[in-house]
Amino acid sequence: MNKPRQVYRLSEIVQRFGGEVLGDSDVSISQVATLEAAGPGQISFYANSRYRKQLEQTRAEAVILDANASASTRRTRLVCRDPYAYFARVSALLNPPAAVVAGIHPLAVVHPTARVANSACVGPFVAIGAGTEVGDRTLVGANCTLGDNVRIGSDCRLHSGVSIYHDCIVGDRVILHSGVIIGADGFGLAWDGGRWHKIPQIGRVLLGDDVEVGANTTIDRGALDDTVIEEGVKLDNQIQIGHNCRIGAHTAIAGCAGVAGSTRIGRYCRIGGSAMIGGHLEIADNVEVSGATGVSKSILKAGTYTSLFPMSLHRDWLRNASHIRHLDALAGRLRDLEARLAELEGKKNE
Amino acid sequence: MNKPRQVYRLSEIVQRFGGEVLGDSDVSISQVATLEAAGPGQISFYANSRYRKQLEQTRAEAVILDANASASTRRTRLVCRDPYAYFARVSALLNPPAAVVAGIHPLAVVHPTARVANSACVGPFVAIGAGTEVGDRTLVGANCTLGDNVRIGSDCRLHSGVSIYHDCIVGDRVILHSGVIIGADGFGLAWDGGRWHKIPQIGRVLLGDDVEVGANTTIDRGALDDTVIEEGVKLDNQIQIGHNCRIGAHTAIAGCAGVAGSTRIGRYCRIGGSAMIGGHLEIADNVEVSGATGVSKSILKAGTYTSLFPMSLHRDWLRNASHIRHLDALAGRLRDLEARLAELEGKKNE
Amino acid sequence: MNKPRQVYRLSEIVQRFGGEVLGDSDVSISQVATLEAAGPGQISFYANSRYRKQLEQTRAEAVILDANASASTRRTRLVCRDPYAYFARVSALLNPPAAVVAGIHPLAVVHPTARVANSACVGPFVAIGAGTEVGDRTLVGANCTLGDNVRIGSDCRLHSGVSIYHDCIVGDRVILHSGVIIGADGFGLAWDGGRWHKIPQIGRVLLGDDVEVGANTTIDRGALDDTVIEEGVKLDNQIQIGHNCRIGAHTAIAGCAGVAGSTRIGRYCRIGGSAMIGGHLEIADNVEVSGATGVSKSILKAGTYTSLFPMSLHRDWLRNASHIRHLDALAGRLRDLEARLAELEGKKNE
Repeated sequence: MNKPRQVYRLSEIVQRFGGEVLGDSDVSISQVATLEAAGPGQISFYANSRYRKQLEQTRAEAVILDANASASTRRTRLVCRDPYAYFARVSALLNPPAAVVAGIHPLAVVHPTARVANSACVGPFVAIGAGTEVGDRTLVGANCTLGDNVRIGSDCRLHSGVSIYHDCIVGDRVILHSGVIIGADGFGLAWDGGRWHKIPQIGRVLLGDDVEVGANTTIDRGALDDTVIEEGVKLDNQIQIGHNCRIGAHTAIAGCAGVAGSTRIGRYCRIGGSAMIGGHLEIADNVEVSGATGVSKSILKAGTYTSLFPMSLHRDWLRNASHIRHLDALAGRLRDLEARLAELEGKKNE
Repeated sequence: MNKPRQVYRLSEIVQRFGGEVLGDSDVSISQVATLEAAGPGQISFYANSRYRKQLEQTRAEAVILDANASASTRRTRLVCRDPYAYFARVSALLNPPAAVVAGIHPLAVVHPTARVANSACVGPFVAIGAGTEVGDRTLVGANCTLGDNVRIGSDCRLHSGVSIYHDCIVGDRVILHSGVIIGADGFGLAWDGGRWHKIPQIGRVLLGDDVEVGANTTIDRGALDDTVIEEGVKLDNQIQIGHNCRIGAHTAIAGCAGVAGSTRIGRYCRIGGSAMIGGHLEIADNVEVSGATGVSKSILKAGTYTSLFPMSLHRDWLRNASHIRHLDALAGRLRDLEARLAELEGKKNE
Repeated sequence: MNKPRQVYRLSEIVQRFGGEVLGDSDVSISQVATLEAAGPGQISFYANSRYRKQLEQTRAEAVILDANASASTRRTRLVCRDPYAYFARVSALLNPPAAVVAGIHPLAVVHPTARVANSACVGPFVAIGAGTEVGDRTLVGANCTLGDNVRIGSDCRLHSGVSIYHDCIVGDRVILHSGVIIGADGFGLAWDGGRWHKIPQIGRVLLGDDVEVGANTTIDRGALDDTVIEEGVKLDNQIQIGHNCRIGAHTAIAGCAGVAGSTRIGRYCRIGGSAMIGGHLEIADNVEVSGATGVSKSILKAGTYTSLFPMSLHRDWLRNASHIRHLDALAGRLRDLEARLAELEGKKNE
């Protein structure tokens, strides 16, 4: 928050990312902020009409907005097609990740056969196993553990306390947040002789380029084949991905969701928070699953799918929900009424 | 369990916390226990009539109960208004947290610009970043990682394996259990040019005084503004709090619940286990959300809210649940029947 | 993946585990694989008719199947009663866990009063508390923290980053995956004087023999008595077990499930992923709970139980779900219709 940082004139920003300035393009921008909180030197954005009031009252140095909204404020404006995406670029420009300071901390334990790039940074209390590779400019935070024969690409960031089991492969520019576990054993059991027997999980986890994985999310290694997370997939916190799943490129999954084993999710899907997706299913490309939705069948067609019981006051819930257990009987009574009424109407018309 | 510990006479306990002893107030109390398990020197409590039988059979040295129940046993009784709250105080008296042994373990890595109080305890394999402060008598357990410019108050307990990202602020008397992640990036993405772009998360997490956070719970840093957990909030295990949420003072949330980004929960709320609360919502003060309830709309009035599909045997569920997809048609058929029957009744009365 | 490993002739496998070879029993088997991926030296299995096509096309060296299926391929067959369980044994034979290399890493911190077996392996950055015991051939991975007076049996595997709080007891042959937290405080609070007061959690966690616990799963210590996980219980990832629960022997629970405090689950149960089981409940032996099911009442009889709201396209959900809040009124209107129709029919027959 308090780091000195690079400052850009609005004109420089427009030169990089396009768009048009209405007002003084010489103003200096040092940080992004919300419409409500922004002050001198800060740029904000307006992308949703529910923030109209905040737009009118903002003291931001400049506001990113689209042509339709450009008359709504007299502050300096940066007019573009997609204000939110534009804002994302400006914020990334103003807030680059901290530079990686190359070197292996003296209190890290790196196996002699591991290959850590000279430009990589390995923090204290990191254990790196035999044959493991860490790519250029990759940061491995404190207290991470990398098993044997792991391969991590370049420009990755492993925050503190990440564990990666043996043989897993991580692409380039991957971000793993604290507490992420990659490659723990899948839940593979066979019932035999009155007890469960563990099935060795000999597959791996493959994470594609530009994947981001949120805090405490777990991705299990495959039982026989690999678990695959394709490029550009974004996983939020506390998600569980079962063994042998495949998550298609550029799919985003929100927090607390679970995907049971051997399920294949397509590309460009959006899965809501706390959604539960059963095992051995197929989810097509471009499917959206609402939050808290349970998916127990394959979804073969793009669209938005939901399975939430509507919330109400508990006393109303008690009264209404009690009928759920009798819906079949209720439907039967309705059919019976229809038949009897039709008969009565028939007689009437005789 | 086996530590020698302080012993109190019943009379001393009453002197501290009030209440009245029926029986021998000279008996010594060394520990609390359930009615079923308690023996000599142990005090139990009775606060729920379903344990009447255990009360009758208990061999506890003394029992905490209210006036209505005081005739139900002949054991020594400690009569008070709220037996459970009284028991909590007695247990806290008998089971104080282990004293913090001041000092920084030689195998901790503390940045030279960090300020760790002389009375604080920093365990082995702890990494503490630049500019970070650790307050008086605060315990930082083994394998914790504190980023740069973190501020931790006094009398806090960070159990092993906690990660706190840069710039986050923790109040006094805060307890963070193992695996807690404070301040990981929120799930902020912009879709642009056929792929997700990460939006830098430049807000912080602010934890108020007397907050307790359960094992493996994650609280994301704000996107622009801060994520705020107000004083006295109690979070159970494996909870996910999204970026820019605000949780009001003294709210308690049970395990596995998730709160999506930018939602504001009021004060004195109680959120049940596995509840899922959507993003950008407002929850009023004193709201209770039942376990496993999905909240997809704001709740503006105190009360208890539920959205659980009633459980039944799977074969009954199959039969009844199949009608859910036809409820609208069913309601239409009902309206149709009503109209036809009214017409028939009209004719009848002609 | 690339380790040299032991190779077995098919005849040796049959000698160990029974069954009958159809074809060349001299072939050498070095690894298991799916029907689709298997090649020379690899054995696969066929246990589900949906993989019939893969069976016909497999290039596996040999296939494990039952008598009914033995005519479906000309590859070398190993015929047995239960192909999946047989496959599990073969895979365990071919993929034994890596041998434990005895010794304590110089960068581990072991309290002088702790007793670590000479045959145990303690990795780097492990902290072991006072009075704690680690049994024969047990592996404690990097960055684990064991509190005071913990007892771990023999032949256990604690993967990296496991935390076990003081006084907890772990049986023999227990596997704890990365990020597991055993014995954090249960969620015990008393409301008193306008704020929550913490109730000391003085019970322990007891894990029986042959228990496996998945990544980032948390099991809370008991409030007064112990939390007990009986022998052979298998817990998947990201499960939360509340204080004072008892999970009966050989029960399996899938990922993301939660069990609230003081609930007793019987033996041989199977709990689906993301299921939520409320507190203070009794679940009988041999109960199966479907994925994403919320259990708010005790289940006293074996059987399969479900509470999922059926998923549909969001627009259909909107239309149908809106009636849920009026089910009681709808049922009332149906009763009314029945009465009126009966009256009409009565008149008709007059």
